[in-house]
Amino acid sequence: MIQTRVIQKYCSTIEFVDEVLSSPTSIYVIDYEVHRLCPDLVSEGGDIFVLPKGEASKTEEVQKKLIDFLFEKKCTKDTTLIAVGGGSTLDLVGFVASIYMRGLSLTYVPTTLLAMVDASIGGKTAINTPFGKNLIGTFYPPKKVLICPMFLNTLSTEEKQNGVFEILKLALVYDSSLLDLAEDKWIYRAVLAKSQIVEKDPLDLGLRRILNFGHTVAHGLEAASSFQIPHGRAVAIGSVVEAFMSFKMGFLSERDFQTVLKIFDPYSLKLPKSYHRKIFLESLFLDKKNSNGQVRCVLLEKIGKAASFDGAYCKEVPFFILEEASAFMENRYG
Amino acid sequence: MIQTRVIQKYCSTIEFVDEVLSSPTSIYVIDYEVHRLCPDLVSEGGDIFVLPKGEASKTEEVQKKLIDFLFEKKCTKDTTLIAVGGGSTLDLVGFVASIYMRGLSLTYVPTTLLAMVDASIGGKTAINTPFGKNLIGTFYPPKKVLICPMFLNTLSTEEKQNGVFEILKLALVYDSSLLDLAEDKWIYRAVLAKSQIVEKDPLDLGLRRILNFGHTVAHGLEAASSFQIPHGRAVAIGSVVEAFMSFKMGFLSERDFQTVLKIFDPYSLKLPKSYHRKIFLESLFLDKKNSNGQVRCVLLEKIGKAASFDGAYCKEVPFFILEEASAFMENRYG
Repeated sequence: MIQTRVIQKYCSTIEFVDEVLSSPTSIYVIDYEVHRLCPDLVSEGGDIFVLPKGEASKTEEVQKKLIDFLFEKKCTKDTTLIAVGGGSTLDLVGFVASIYMRGLSLTYVPTTLLAMVDASIGGKTAINTPFGKNLIGTFYPPKKVLICPMFLNTLSTEEKQNGVFEILKLALVYDSSLLDLAEDKWIYRAVLAKSQIVEKDPLDLGLRRILNFGHTVAHGLEAASSFQIPHGRAVAIGSVVEAFMSFKMGFLSERDFQTVLKIFDPYSLKLPKSYHRKIFLESLFLDKKNSNGQVRCVLLEKIGKAASFDGAYCKEVPFFILEEASAFMENRYG
Repeated sequence: MIQTRVIQKYCSTIEFVDEVLSSPTSIYVIDYEVHRLCPDLVSEGGDIFVLPKGEASKTEEVQKKLIDFLFEKKCTKDTTLIAVGGGSTLDLVGFVASIYMRGLSLTYVPTTLLAMVDASIGGKTAINTPFGKNLIGTFYPPKKVLICPMFLNTLSTEEKQNGVFEILKLALVYDSSLLDLAEDKWIYRAVLAKSQIVEKDPLDLGLRRILNFGHTVAHGLEAASSFQIPHGRAVAIGSVVEAFMSFKMGFLSERDFQTVLKIFDPYSLKLPKSYHRKIFLESLFLDKKNSNGQVRCVLLEKIGKAASFDGAYCKEVPFFILEEASAFMENRYG
């Protein structure tokens, strides 16, 4: 055992382990790539369902196939589903666990850094539909999350950075002490931070919105580049640009804004080649947080704290600030 | 207004109303027969989705059609779904509300006596699959239940009796005062009783099992008659027979058992013509409550109280008692 720590938050027990033990009464649902890289993960007992590659796994079609597999294996309410993979795998398996016989026991084994600190925690499950991403889903926290850092060795630089940017975002909106930690302590502390936020607002009605910091700009960049930019990088640029807005609107000090710039300097962020300001600005107005045709963003009041705005945790950003922010972004990352 | 009473139990507000008001921001999902009998129910605004007839409404196919309808109407998290119909309608619409964008506001307008006192309360949603009934579902209580006794005038005698038998079962396992009330006070008191049980055990892990009183025998009778016997009548016979077992096993006094017999006397209960003891006894062994090949039943300790058995709320019934109970049932209702 490397380390075993247990945190009881929002119904889930989160354990740090150095191997995933198989159990004969469980069904393992495993990501395609993970199964290819670690074919002996489930060595004894336990039925295995291997998912198709990538985002294709999170569809209604695969959901139905997995449910039929559970019926064929005569799974009852006593069955435990063990999801092994990244965020898409956890989202899909969590959803199936939440609706099969009104709820099966559920264990998450996240295999990406991003899934360890994000999708594993908070109980949001979802599948994609032809009408959009994550439109069908439930709130259903897993009983257990097993975090096995061994899996980090299987990740590409880009996959690892997706998780790093999520952790930096958590540092900016909630827990600045993450910035001072050595990398090997990050996961535990990030898990703790997200658990605390989710526990205070499990159904995403207030505080939990701070997790959307950087995401208004990120969604705009993604839409304007036809999703050619990786989500992690879009969120990283979005974090810097929304920190800029926070500074320009008088909520964040210039010193703290300069610190934000320095935090992201090592990652040589770049705007996608297809970027055009007009399309980007138009895309901002399509974000879910908006109302009455106003663009809303989560803003910082200092490093480690998002501004509350009386519990709304987001604020309308005037159009001239959006234009100034675009110019700043083009200048820095263009 | 006839009467307006509000009970806050397990997240749902239950109101007694004398009409169902329409709202332009809601989607009404209405049972086929109810829509035929009350075509003007939704007079102004609000989109309407009319379900196919009967149990056919509670399928994966109809679930998908309803979800696509919601996407086409561009429903968001602010949409309220209003389900108007019997238990099947409420179960289906509740399930869809629980998974659409991780949860829509949900109002139930039960139109049968059984749905008013049973499916409306407790938050169980479900659809049927080719593998069996109610195998896919969630726990998702409606925000509001509007009980409009006007609908009772649309029911056949059999439909009304299905509700009456459910109320009598509640009286036997939990609240004997229901037996002394005039019929017009039944609904309110039965709703209160089921709400209390569900609030103490929302996820059906203990006390809530007492609601299965009469159901082991009822499921046996249904299976042995290829579901030719109406569910309500099967539960009524089952209640008497499981009271007989409670008496024979020494948990219920003979006086209380005689009272149970008198309670059901007015309803001229009859076994289905296709009844055969051998098939009936075999069917008992297929019940979900069983383990290790033993038949388990909820048993009474007195009128108004199911026996707790240290929180298990059910007990193995020896085979010779099952045989004696069959003989008693054939003698009385054959």
